Amino acid sequence: MTMTNRVFVLRERPDPDITDGTLELVERDVPEPAEGEVLVRNTWLSLDPTNRTWMGPQATYLPAIPLGDPMRGLTVGRVVKSRFEGVADGSLVSGLGGFADYGVIPAKDVSPVPEGLDPRAALSVLGHIGLTAYFGLTEIGRPEAGDTVLVSAAAGATGSLVGQIAKLLGCRVVGTAGTDEKCTWLTDELGFDAAINYKTTKNLTLAIRAACPERVDVFFDNVGGEVLDAALANLAMKARVVICGGISQYNAEKVQGPSNYLALILYRARMEGFVVIDYASRAGEALMALVPWLQQGKLKQRYHVVDGLENADAALRLLFDGGNRGKLLVKIAD
Amino acid sequence: MTMTNRVFVLRERPDPDITDGTLELVERDVPEPAEGEVLVRNTWLSLDPTNRTWMGPQATYLPAIPLGDPMRGLTVGRVVKSRFEGVADGSLVSGLGGFADYGVIPAKDVSPVPEGLDPRAALSVLGHIGLTAYFGLTEIGRPEAGDTVLVSAAAGATGSLVGQIAKLLGCRVVGTAGTDEKCTWLTDELGFDAAINYKTTKNLTLAIRAACPERVDVFFDNVGGEVLDAALANLAMKARVVICGGISQYNAEKVQGPSNYLALILYRARMEGFVVIDYASRAGEALMALVPWLQQGKLKQRYHVVDGLENADAALRLLFDGGNRGKLLVKIAD
Repeated sequence: MTMTNRVFVLRERPDPDITDGTLELVERDVPEPAEGEVLVRNTWLSLDPTNRTWMGPQATYLPAIPLGDPMRGLTVGRVVKSRFEGVADGSLVSGLGGFADYGVIPAKDVSPVPEGLDPRAALSVLGHIGLTAYFGLTEIGRPEAGDTVLVSAAAGATGSLVGQIAKLLGCRVVGTAGTDEKCTWLTDELGFDAAINYKTTKNLTLAIRAACPERVDVFFDNVGGEVLDAALANLAMKARVVICGGISQYNAEKVQGPSNYLALILYRARMEGFVVIDYASRAGEALMALVPWLQQGKLKQRYHVVDGLENADAALRLLFDGGNRGKLLVKIAD
Repeated sequence: MTMTNRVFVLRERPDPDITDGTLELVERDVPEPAEGEVLVRNTWLSLDPTNRTWMGPQATYLPAIPLGDPMRGLTVGRVVKSRFEGVADGSLVSGLGGFADYGVIPAKDVSPVPEGLDPRAALSVLGHIGLTAYFGLTEIGRPEAGDTVLVSAAAGATGSLVGQIAKLLGCRVVGTAGTDEKCTWLTDELGFDAAINYKTTKNLTLAIRAACPERVDVFFDNVGGEVLDAALANLAMKARVVICGGISQYNAEKVQGPSNYLALILYRARMEGFVVIDYASRAGEALMALVPWLQQGKLKQRYHVVDGLENADAALRLLFDGGNRGKLLVKIAD
């Protein structure tokens, strides 16, 4: 057993881009769990847009990461030393194990991962991503059968699930993505009714109008910026705009607010944010729907796997230039 | 009876400001009502921020006004010729009589004004303004007793009612306004808990924080721009942002969207727009609350009266530089 722990520490806060100086890979001793904690050997690390929001100086829905501390990240791993009676050594768990070989996590904050389950699914469709898509769509977006649901970053981990769930709920589904390949995947593999390449479309507002002839009842936004403005211009009456994220703005010097926000008046529409951790206690509800859909082949997830913890830093940046194809994960160990 | 009708017609669309060329006062024949219409001698004209939105090239919640047509405006007046059985000659009504001495209105679109009622109240607290404040606050903002309610343009016609209604509902109420005199009126006359002069305050975000120590549960926004951004930075969890208007942006070349909109995620908050005409059929509900409050002296409204139709054009611009004090009205005739 290696007794050193490779850890990415947060060296500088992005200003605004993540650069080579943001994270630094250092070697540290493997930490010791205190009473009530577990030491986890991370095997998979989830890379998510929200990682960027944690790097800033301000607390978000979680505290800011102090400079010099390990970079926070969601992992799957095996407990190598438990100091909590309810979690056995050797058990497979998910939790905030960090961008590291080993992490110490409060036992109350880890979730068991069933043996035999693809650990990638535990970090996507059956984990935080699936819950984000499910609750964001059903609780905030509240689509009804026949509604038109527009999804941005639709080829991303969350967006691709949102669109598929909306289809299963009987909606017309349109997605935006940044390459023709992603758009083809959305329509041909996932069953989206239409997909728009926002990078090559000359007029996004008109493209959405053409793809959503009955306008947009629910817009599930992961992106912000121009896409949000174009969606606002196409809202149906009483539309719901789900603010899940704003990846186009996370690295912006100054966030570009939606200049079409007054469309909320015209269309009597609602724009609402949410954070998936609020729904942790209701995970079972989502899994009751997601597991059967997954088993029946009705939900597909594409994985983009990067090998080796040492590549996590470079891989993270793929999220911000759209370079990943599907849920981005780092394989740390077998 | 004068047989000529002075009418402000929309000559040019504002680009972006209302200028001397926007409206033109012309003399026309008094129009003839068709079957189902009534001819009204306007006595009072309401000037409202929404007038500006009607001047643009795009339809809003009402069709765009064709260039050369009379400027749309809400009036109180007396029916001089009715061609509808249910409306008698000589009755007092409110409706879209326009920026004119006389207007023809479909009889189904006029509301009776009780004889003896101050016609100014029919165009404010017991009219569209009162309904906007009441339904916007109670249906969209949904404050509970003990909540903190922040109101922008709080010394304006709508904002001053919103704040007073929120106080009557048991809330802590804070307003923003553009002069110290307005702020003093809010706290000393209307009972607001605090008021902030947004023009002289160095840091609006910190000023709101100081005035709202338990953060903002409901923000009722008539303004947009910097005030909206500062409010978003001070939201409480599950806050509601009521988008009633955005007067700071109506004359903007490019609307400044709220760059803090991602606070909706952090605070699990909702931003929602509405249009008062949707609540027309429920006016009685609002009046059941507003009339007794008014009779008991619990709701105060300040009127800013400009004499003479010919001054309506210049008066309208007061709304956009904050020059009015209270509900802005033009007295057209006795």
